Amino acid sequence: MAYPNSLQKLIERLKYLPGVGEKSAERFAFSILEMEEEKSLSLAKSIEEVPTKIHECKRCHTLTENELCDVCSDSLRDKEVLCVVEDTKSVFLFEKLGTYNGRYHVLEGLIDLSSGIRPEDIGLNELVDRIKQENYKEVILAFKPSIEGETTALYIHNILEGLPIKISRIASGIPMGADMEYIDPLTLERAFQDRKEIA
Amino acid sequence: MAYPNSLQKLIERLKYLPGVGEKSAERFAFSILEMEEEKSLSLAKSIEEVPTKIHECKRCHTLTENELCDVCSDSLRDKEVLCVVEDTKSVFLFEKLGTYNGRYHVLEGLIDLSSGIRPEDIGLNELVDRIKQENYKEVILAFKPSIEGETTALYIHNILEGLPIKISRIASGIPMGADMEYIDPLTLERAFQDRKEIA
Repeated sequence: MAYPNSLQKLIERLKYLPGVGEKSAERFAFSILEMEEEKSLSLAKSIEEVPTKIHECKRCHTLTENELCDVCSDSLRDKEVLCVVEDTKSVFLFEKLGTYNGRYHVLEGLIDLSSGIRPEDIGLNELVDRIKQENYKEVILAFKPSIEGETTALYIHNILEGLPIKISRIASGIPMGADMEYIDPLTLERAFQDRKEIA
Repeated sequence: MAYPNSLQKLIERLKYLPGVGEKSAERFAFSILEMEEEKSLSLAKSIEEVPTKIHECKRCHTLTENELCDVCSDSLRDKEVLCVVEDTKSVFLFEKLGTYNGRYHVLEGLIDLSSGIRPEDIGLNELVDRIKQENYKEVILAFKPSIEGETTALYIHNILEGLPIKISRIASGIPMGADMEYIDPLTLERAFQDRKEIA
């Protein structure tokens, strides 16, 4: 006896979620069967509705329910600093921290020549247009430390060179509290290169 | 800036799934945003519909879309052997193996006196009624090896004692391929107790 047809379908569909294989999908499916009706219905409703409600902010491409996101429409945010990120998740991550008070621009990923992803594929033309139109004093590049992150940062730096704008990158190095012996060689190398003088 | 309201709600609701915390819920939510519409809608539909379509088999309490499950309505299954399990998941697990050809009875968990779960709470009265009405030659108890499993097995054995029915339990011991040094003492003890003579 296999699972009843509708249950089998639910299991297959739960596997659309990232990292969810057969076992987890079964576990989720059984928990949905046992859930209070109100809960399972509200979950179904959210999955159905959210993709239509949420879209990209017209200006910075982070996710929002409105035309402009909360950051772009907030007149109290610093209009002279722009933080460029590789995906919309980074925006919410930085906002949770609460230390950054400027604006954002979300790219569609990073340049990855080995996979054929070129500057124009990630929306760099639009970024450059935006930077030229608005009056930024500093552009902070906040990509993950990786070959793709380096390539994208270097590329942006090269296009913007000559403009009266400071281009910076978030620091890369040993994570706080990490054990030295578990740090990979590239990170260690970068930590030496980027060493700071103790003032 | 926090997540847009509807996205935040989706994240909260994904946490209804077992073992899903903030990070996984966020990951799932973002993947739902990026999913093809057809996929997210079908997932939502399944979550909405399945709990109403699936219910317990009238006779054995496994899950089915019909009045009787596929095993109970299959005239080719061995009607003289009954396998008693602690949850409906076990049925599908054993069916996947395909080695068992008898019928099933699904209890609502196991006796757990420390949590106040008594024999009548897990449907043992109904099980005994069923065994007395139908003509079984063997009842196989297939509970997980644990204090609750032992208690429930012993209890069922005691009520059925005197009836002309063989009561058996699935074997407990060292799992195939396991490293001896990682086996817990209780399992090891049981493996010694239940040792089998090499014929």
